[in-house]
Formats: sequence, structure tokens, C-alpha cells
Amino acid sequence: MPFNILRAAHIEFRVTDLDRARAFYVDTLGFIETAADTDHLYLRGYEEREHHSLTLRRAESAGVGHLAFRVASEADLDELAALHAERGLPTRWLAAGEECGQGRALRVQDPTGLPVEFYHQMAPAERWLQRFDLYRGPGIMRLDHFNCQVPHVQAAFDWYHEGLGFWLSESTETDDQPPRLWAVWLHRKQNVHDLALMSGLGPRVHHAGFWLGDPLGVIRACDILAAAGYAHAIERGPGRHGLSNAMFLYLRDPDGNRIELYTGDYLIADPDWPPIRWSINDPRRATFWGHAPPASWFNEAALVENIRTGDCMPTRAAALQDRPNFVT
Amino acid sequence: MPFNILRAAHIEFRVTDLDRARAFYVDTLGFIETAADTDHLYLRGYEEREHHSLTLRRAESAGVGHLAFRVASEADLDELAALHAERGLPTRWLAAGEECGQGRALRVQDPTGLPVEFYHQMAPAERWLQRFDLYRGPGIMRLDHFNCQVPHVQAAFDWYHEGLGFWLSESTETDDQPPRLWAVWLHRKQNVHDLALMSGLGPRVHHAGFWLGDPLGVIRACDILAAAGYAHAIERGPGRHGLSNAMFLYLRDPDGNRIELYTGDYLIADPDWPPIRWSINDPRRATFWGHAPPASWFNEAALVENIRTGDCMPTRAAALQDRPNFVT
Amino acid sequence: MPFNILRAAHIEFRVTDLDRARAFYVDTLGFIETAADTDHLYLRGYEEREHHSLTLRRAESAGVGHLAFRVASEADLDELAALHAERGLPTRWLAAGEECGQGRALRVQDPTGLPVEFYHQMAPAERWLQRFDLYRGPGIMRLDHFNCQVPHVQAAFDWYHEGLGFWLSESTETDDQPPRLWAVWLHRKQNVHDLALMSGLGPRVHHAGFWLGDPLGVIRACDILAAAGYAHAIERGPGRHGLSNAMFLYLRDPDGNRIELYTGDYLIADPDWPPIRWSINDPRRATFWGHAPPASWFNEAALVENIRTGDCMPTRAAALQDRPNFVT
Amino acid sequence: MPFNILRAAHIEFRVTDLDRARAFYVDTLGFIETAADTDHLYLRGYEEREHHSLTLRRAESAGVGHLAFRVASEADLDELAALHAERGLPTRWLAAGEECGQGRALRVQDPTGLPVEFYHQMAPAERWLQRFDLYRGPGIMRLDHFNCQVPHVQAAFDWYHEGLGFWLSESTETDDQPPRLWAVWLHRKQNVHDLALMSGLGPRVHHAGFWLGDPLGVIRACDILAAAGYAHAIERGPGRHGLSNAMFLYLRDPDGNRIELYTGDYLIADPDWPPIRWSINDPRRATFWGHAPPASWFNEAALVENIRTGDCMPTRAAALQDRPNFVT
Repeated sequence: MPFNILRAAHIEFRVTDLDRARAFYVDTLGFIETAADTDHLYLRGYEEREHHSLTLRRAESAGVGHLAFRVASEADLDELAALHAERGLPTRWLAAGEECGQGRALRVQDPTGLPVEFYHQMAPAERWLQRFDLYRGPGIMRLDHFNCQVPHVQAAFDWYHEGLGFWLSESTETDDQPPRLWAVWLHRKQNVHDLALMSGLGPRVHHAGFWLGDPLGVIRACDILAAAGYAHAIERGPGRHGLSNAMFLYLRDPDGNRIELYTGDYLIADPDWPPIRWSINDPRRATFWGHAPPASWFNEAALVENIRTGDCMPTRAAALQDRPNFVT
Repeated sequence: MPFNILRAAHIEFRVTDLDRARAFYVDTLGFIETAADTDHLYLRGYEEREHHSLTLRRAESAGVGHLAFRVASEADLDELAALHAERGLPTRWLAAGEECGQGRALRVQDPTGLPVEFYHQMAPAERWLQRFDLYRGPGIMRLDHFNCQVPHVQAAFDWYHEGLGFWLSESTETDDQPPRLWAVWLHRKQNVHDLALMSGLGPRVHHAGFWLGDPLGVIRACDILAAAGYAHAIERGPGRHGLSNAMFLYLRDPDGNRIELYTGDYLIADPDWPPIRWSINDPRRATFWGHAPPASWFNEAALVENIRTGDCMPTRAAALQDRPNFVT
Repeated sequence: MPFNILRAAHIEFRVTDLDRARAFYVDTLGFIETAADTDHLYLRGYEEREHHSLTLRRAESAGVGHLAFRVASEADLDELAALHAERGLPTRWLAAGEECGQGRALRVQDPTGLPVEFYHQMAPAERWLQRFDLYRGPGIMRLDHFNCQVPHVQAAFDWYHEGLGFWLSESTETDDQPPRLWAVWLHRKQNVHDLALMSGLGPRVHHAGFWLGDPLGVIRACDILAAAGYAHAIERGPGRHGLSNAMFLYLRDPDGNRIELYTGDYLIADPDWPPIRWSINDPRRATFWGHAPPASWFNEAALVENIRTGDCMPTRAAALQDRPNFVT
Repeated sequence: MPFNILRAAHIEFRVTDLDRARAFYVDTLGFIETAADTDHLYLRGYEEREHHSLTLRRAESAGVGHLAFRVASEADLDELAALHAERGLPTRWLAAGEECGQGRALRVQDPTGLPVEFYHQMAPAERWLQRFDLYRGPGIMRLDHFNCQVPHVQAAFDWYHEGLGFWLSESTETDDQPPRLWAVWLHRKQNVHDLALMSGLGPRVHHAGFWLGDPLGVIRACDILAAAGYAHAIERGPGRHGLSNAMFLYLRDPDGNRIELYTGDYLIADPDWPPIRWSINDPRRATFWGHAPPASWFNEAALVENIRTGDCMPTRAAALQDRPNFVT
């Protein structure tokens, strides 16, 4: 590849009430508030050294404005613009500062319709990793990954793997003969994923995953949320994923946007890592302990924006079944 | 009281296959096997200094042979025999050694029909508390409590509280006006309970609770069970109880007998402790995080033996509703 | 006994700067501040339902004003007053309210010179056990015990065991033949101790132990203290005691008063518990992992007040060696 | 670079008694034994998919045979051979299978004298990541890094950074004006280090770091080691490093070879990561909580082999001070 995508870097959630969102993300979950204006909150985790990994933007409805990957150089942005143009995909340049704290950036509508941003420069922010005296909440360390629903996983995988150079860590297949690709976990940084793509009504963003510093963090998150009156925000978990081996907890913010608190997957430092394959109907895949996810976990996800109009992108149904047989 | 009941001490489960039960309790959960014969396994936890806290007895069906409380002296046994005789309740003496490792013991059928044993002497066993090199499984430290379903909780409470001197730590009430007692948590030792009594088809033993040394133990238990092929044994949890504040995990052994792995409740050193009252329909009561228990958790429990015949005691339906409105 | 001492209940530390002490105890360690006046801070832990378990009192120098045990009834106070008078020990009554939030109380100078208070009534305070959203710091749950240095442990043990009814859980002996009692761990509530007595220059209070909710709390405490600029406050640990099996961390407050953060000892529900005996020179006794305590841990402790004059009590040297052979 | 070094991959310790070493590493710490012959044990952690990450080789004395990095392709080996030859550094090729389970490999004596191996192919081994039922000990997941003492850190850094393409994550400098480089933490995989180089008598291998799955693992390690009679093996910790932020525990095997149990550092996915600089005399650098390392930690380390003769390499004193001022 003539460019180098480094990692999942930030996501922009649409929220209808910034104060209500701040109460959830900052006051309860302990995200650090780097900056705010009338229409935005810019948040980060304790391990992060950049301006923001989560933007909350005032909007008429929930959803996702864009999800962003950091690249290794400014030149990578030009290469990516050329690649997308060549493919006839919509692109838009953002000038430096158009997104607070960020250098110039390239927004694209990927082949599945997801609004993706690439950038290189971001203003630094103080890392709180060792400010243990300031930790609050379950200990949000950093953004880890995005998970998206798309109608055709095979096509989306081809684009991200062959077009953009993402590696496959684990996959889920249908029980058809031959099996078909139901979901993929793709990474650029060296853990299980920066981007997961699952079969479903899409394009939609299913969740953004944030890393916790220790496995007890998922327990603390439940305790804190319930004590603060947010028990209803706990949608699924705590549990351990068979796929990725991580401990997880899925939360819905006051607008319904979904985040995952996630910790304890594994290192993948070898580019020739043999991917791990799962059947969609293996009950240990989703939750290693055998718990079935709730139907809402498959039904509900965030609509995404058209990068030019800001309207929500239309969705299409999944080409394959959209959930395991045992979830009804 | 002219006698002093000290604590919940051991329980006897009926199992249909001792080898299968050993694979679950000893090989997977890490209980210490103190002794075994053709018809019994005698197990204990790492903190315990007595011969057994869990007996597995070969039988034709699942169920509970008896549950036992330790008393402070031999004379207490005579006082308890007199009390039960005076009340016309069935009693039976066991000679020393009739139960392996145990001195003489008194078995009674309590007013609800539960088979209860009192004893004072038990053979010592090595405490493994600091044999960390021998720990296996999630870390079963000691028996903590029994939980039983009875048709009339108020009557059962009166017997245990006024008759036997158990203190009330927490209670659950119906939403009737005036509220009626739906369940009680009763203790002699200084934590939340030695005995819980819940409204339900009874007399049945709902579960025996075993103490874990740390909150991560409930996570380790799920991981180990799933890895060993026992994911189906996980019935409910992990979670935190609102009532008692403990972390919990409910398991069904290969015969369906239920145990709870339990940790992190609190100390009650004051005899004038003001009990904590909950509504049965408070969603945070059962699981503080708002998760509803599965219906099986209310429907299924272990039949108990007639102390004279060994037959299973007949059951009667609960006088009150047997579960929260939100469990269907 | 004609009286019933329930548990270690609170301690009064002398501090020279209340604001500085608040920054340490409240802002950093997360104690709840129940009340304050010009000369006092009244603090409690998250599990406690009483007004205070730690009082910080403005004074010219560090030290301990008194340590207090709760008793089961008002009549117990009269019995204890009679017992101490009969023994010729100094006593003083405090009227209800003389100590903020507390009913009438009896102060005594025990046979070793320690200033001990007995009380029954204390104003209730909200329990924060399930206010996880308000937890800060390592999670101070409740006062657990006092540890005192006295010149003659055998005599002090006789008084507390035979005179006041404390039970022995564990002991430390010298390597003399016959061995002599070097230290005792005594309890009324059902864990390892309410009061430990060690051979040393005395009477002095070595430390007050506060209970943490989980073993990771000792790690969090170190991280938080170091981040907040209190690394020098960490005197010993984290470690595990062989004696008691608890995880520990010893801290010195800004005046030098010592507290222990403590968790994970065990239940003692049997009054006939066979005490566990250790040699003073067993390297696993103090720290199971073999780490030697620093000399300061033996040399330094808090002077205590004369209950009538408020002056500091004079001290005498230990009758036996005051530390293991391997601490120099 | 025309080659791609992926990660620290395995180390070979010399041990004088393989059975004694097995008791320590396998029976107590829970390493998986992949293979063994008369002169070797080949061990791995639960997360690893390769034949071995730790080799124990029977020898007359303790020490390190070699430390190995995996490269991305066979061609990388040829490139590395050419580079070392060009620099006049000793090299030796190992045929496939000459090291059990491994393809052909290149051994070199690096400019500091360290015996370094590069390889691409290694036989696969079953990953036990989700065999929680087989976990024993503190949970050794994978090799993380090597730490070596060399007389001239600046020169060694130049070689590894400019010659081999390692990135600098954190560094330690003297308090001289201008400051001089006292130690460097270098990485190829995306966490703090694959290789640390510290000023000291060298070339010597100070320790190999193995990753634990959770922070409580360092506590479990101490408990297990002490219970199994290895308390003396605990040299330093548990603690948290200021540099790297990781939890640590340093152990000495029965021959004196040193390993670190290590967990909880952070992700570095950005190649333009601004390195973090520390003063050697900052007390929070070595242990964030302020504990000083013991002198043995600076004095003692493993001699390394001449890759051609197998003799131990001679050592030279450090050009700079070899420890902080506060360690005496």
C-alpha cells in the first residue's frame, strides 16, 4: 500500500441533549472533557495523548457523524483521496481546524456507505495515565475499535482488506456449504480489531469500543451506572466474548448510541497471523459463557451521515441472516 | 435462648452419579475432597478447618438430604431436641460417626418441612487458606448460607427468629397494603445470612451459597466452566445482588442441584442492626444492575428428604406470588 | 461476662492541621465527611451506618485521643464502669453529645495505659455501600481493628481475654523455651481481630486498620497516593500478612499517625476456634511473601492521652524483644 | 529498513538442574511444557501459538544462551546477515531444526556483545488462551520483552534504533548537563518495549519479561510462590513502574536467572510517538510508589554466551553510574 492507516482514532456521535450526554459520559463514565462549545463536547480517555477520541455533536436525532482513522503522514491523505476518487467514491476535504483540534482531514463515503475520516495531525492533550488521583468511573483508557453493520460483509471485507490493507484476526461464517463470511474483525494496530463488520441492516454503526484498564472495570461500570440511575443503559453483559477473548459490557447512551467497554483481548504482532474462524451458531462465539445476546443487540444500531449532505444514509437489509439461530 | 446456633455448616446433596459429580465439584470447581466411600464424597473449601461442608450422596434422584447448623456445645443439642419435641416436630438422633467425621447430631423436620441437622463436633481437617499453590478453580473458600423456598414465609420467619434466635438482616415485602413478608435473610454468624427463606413451592432448597475470596472469582468461574464444557451449568449471573450487595453466580450441578458462588456482602456485628427492606418489584433488589433472573431460577429447586423415611417431602404452593411481576 | 463488647468502633487521631488532614483522608483516600467543626473532622467508610469511625481532632502534636468499642446496651456501660472501678482503673463518664453524635460514654485508662472508650448509642448516618457513583479513592469500607504496642503482652492479654471476654484468633511467640507471648490478635466481632497487642515501647497505638472492599484496593491506594504526591506516606506494603492472611498497606498521615488498609482475612464464627500460633522469627508471619518490615514500623507509634488530663501517657520499654531478629 | 523485525520472541536460559527448573517454571508458575529432551525444556505461555518462548538448557552455570526476535520473512534473515557481516559482527547460521521447532535462524553477537537470534519460522503450538480450565499459577500469557545491561547505552541505542529500526518509547537520562542517555525502552511490537537497554556491567541479560493477563496476577504469583516454598525467589515487587506504567514482580529462578512478571503497560500504535523522558533520580521512575529497588537488582544479571564458542562473554563496567543515587 502507498499509505499507512494506523488505528481507529475517534468517532462522532450525534446527541440531542449535550448536558444529558455530558452527565452520562463525563460525570458517570469518567471521560475527560478536553473542550466544548455550543454544539460539541470533545472527550478522551486516560491513556490518550490526543485532543479527542469521542465527539458528541448536537443534532436532531441520534446517529454517527463519522468515524476516523489516523494515518502515518499527510501524504497518506493524498494517496487515500486518489484511491477513493479512482473508485468513484464520494470524498470531501476538511480544512485544518474545521474539526476542533485536528489538521486537514479527508472524509469519504466508503463502498458500504459508512462515513469515514482519515487525518494525520491532532492537537496533543495531557495524558492522564498516571493521574490515578483523577480517575473516575470504570477507567476509560482509550478508543479501541468500531463495529459496523453492513448488508454485504464479503464486499466490505474485500475493500478494507485488499483496498486499505486491514488484516483479518478472526471471522464468523454461516453454516452454509460452502460457508459464507458473516462477520470479520480487522486490525491495523496490533490487537484484535480497529474495525469489525457484521452482516445486518446497514450501513449502520453498531458500537464504538473503549478500552478499560482491568477486567474488574466491567463490574465497576455496572455498579456505578446502576447507582447513578443508569441501570437501563446496560444492554448486554458483563461477559466474555469467545471471539476476541475480551471482557465486555454494552451500554446505550441517553440517545441510544451504543458503546462497548472492552478489555483483555490479545496481541497480534505477526502479519502472518492465522485468522481464527467461528461458526455464527457456536454459542461460545458471542459470549464464551453461553449467554445469548438480547434481540435489541442485533436490531438496533446507529444511522450514519452522508458526508456531503449530513442527512442519514438509507439502509438496506442484510444479504445473509442477521443473527445466530438461537437469538429470536 | 438456652442454646447457641453458630452458623450454616454443611449440606448434603443427592446425586445420581458420584464420578460425574466429582468431575464438576472437585476437578472443575476445585472443592477439596476430604474423604470418599462408595456412596459419598465429603468436600470442603480452602478456608475451612472441618471435615466437610458439602456432602454428595449417591441417590436415585437429585435433592437435599439435610442442611446442617453447628451449635456451640453438646448441651445445645439436648436443648434443641427438647424444643422440637415440645413443638411436636419430628426428630432423630444420629450417633457419633453415623455421619462421617461428625459427632452425635440431631436431625429435625422443621415446621416448614425442611430437614435440618444440628451438631457440635466435627473432625478437623487441614485448612488450605494459605496453600495458594494448591488452589484450583474460582477459589471456593467456605460454605456461606442456605436459601430455601417455603409456602409461608411469615410462619417460617417466626420459627427461626423467635424460636431459634436468628436475626433479620434484610427482607423483601410484597407491594400489598399492608405489605406482606415475601422473603427474609437471617443470620447467626456476622454477615448477611446463614439462611434465606423465600416464598415459593416448598419445602425446597433453592441453593447453597459458597464464599469466594475475591470478586474476580465469579469471572474466573464462568471462564473455567465454559472452557471445561460446563457453560450450560451457568444459570444466572455474574451479577451483583442489590439485597446483600454480594457478587453472585448461580450454577446447576450435573443433577440440577443449585449452588451460588457468592462474595462481598458485609459485616453485621451489631445485634440491633436495623434490617433493610426491599419491595419484591424493585428491579435493583435481585440484580442491582437491573438484569431479570430467568424463570427457571424461580421454578426449579431441590426436593428435600423426610428425616425418618428418606422419601422426598411433598410440596405445597406458595401462599403469596412466587416471583416479581417482571419475571414471566 | 455481664456485658457484651461488640466491636472496634472508632478512633480519635490528634492532628496539627485539619485542612492538611482533610486533604489526605477525605480528598485522597475518600473517607466520607459526616461532620466538622473548628476542632474536629468526623469521618466514616462506605459500609458504615454510624456517625463516625475516625475522628481527627486538632492538637499540638500527633497521637491518639482514645479508641472506642461499641457495647450491646447502656447497661453494659455501667457494668464496665463497675469492673474498672473495682480494679482501681481511672474512668471518666462523657455525657451524651459530649462526643459529637454519640450517647453517654465511658472512658477508661486500661491496665496498660491505653485510653479506651465504651459507648452504645451513636447517631445514624447514611450507608453509602451501594452509592458506587460516589466512591473515591481505594474504597474505605469500615474500621476493622486497632493495633497497640504494650510493654507486657501477657498481662494485657489476660485483661482483655479474661477480664473483657476477647477471644484469641492468632498469636506470636518468642523462640524461648518455654515460648513467651509476644503478640496477640483478639476479636469480639467475627473476623481475626478488633484489637492486636504487640510487645513494644508502650502504651502506644501502632495503627488503626480500615477495611477495603477488594484486594485490588491496596494497588489502587498506592497509585492514587503516588499520583497525588503522597508516595512518602506509603510506609510498608502492599503485601499479604501470613498472620491473618490479609492483604495490607501501611500509611502514615501527614502528622505521622499510622493507618492500615486491610482486606481479605477470614471468618471466625466458632467460639472454640483453635488459635493459630506463629514464631516471631518466622519470615512468613509478618509478610507471607518474605519481605521484612522497615525498622520504622517497629520504632514509631502514636502516643496516647491520659483520659483525665489529656497529656500524653509516659511509655516504658518492652519486656521482650520488640521485633523479629531479621529486622535491624 | 529492508527487513522487518516483528517482536521479542524467545529466550534461552542456562540452568544447572532441569528438574529443579521444571518445578519452578512449570509446576509453580504454570508455563506450558511444549517439549523436552535430555538437555532442554521448551516452554510457552497461554496466549502463544508458537512452539516456545522460553527454553531452559542444561549447562554448567546460569546465564543466557541467546535471545531471539521473530522477523517477517525468510528474506529478512538474509538482509540481517548481510548487515551484520558488513559491520564485521560475528554471525552464525542455524539450520532448520537445529533449535527444536524452529526454521533456519541467524545468530549474531550484537555490537554490545549480546547473543541475538533472528528467525522467521517456528512450529505452531496449541493456543491455550481459552483453556481457562487448564490455567495454573499466576497466568503467564506470553513473552513480552528483554532487558539487558550494557556499558554504553548511547552506542547500543544507536545500533538498535538506527541500525535495526527499533522505536524509542521511554528513556532515562542522567542529571548531567547536558543529560546523557542512561537507559532506553525500545519497541517493534506496539507496546512499551521488546528490548530495554540499561547502563551497567555488560553485556548481561538483566531479565526477560512475561506478560500476565490481569493486575491481580502479581499478587497471585507472590501467594503461590510463598506457599510453594519459593518466597526467596521474590526479589522485588509487587509494584508499579513509573516508566511504562506496568505492574511488575521480579523473580529469580533456582539458578538465579531473573524473570519479570509484567502487565498493564500501554499501546503505542503511532510511529511518531513522542518518547517520555525520565531522570534516573526521579524516585517515581523505577517504582511509581517510591519504593527503592534492592541493590541486587542492579548488581546481579546473567552472563551471556559467545555465539561461536558457547563460552561466557567477558564484561566491562558501565561508562555511567549504574544505579540511581538513592540505591546504595
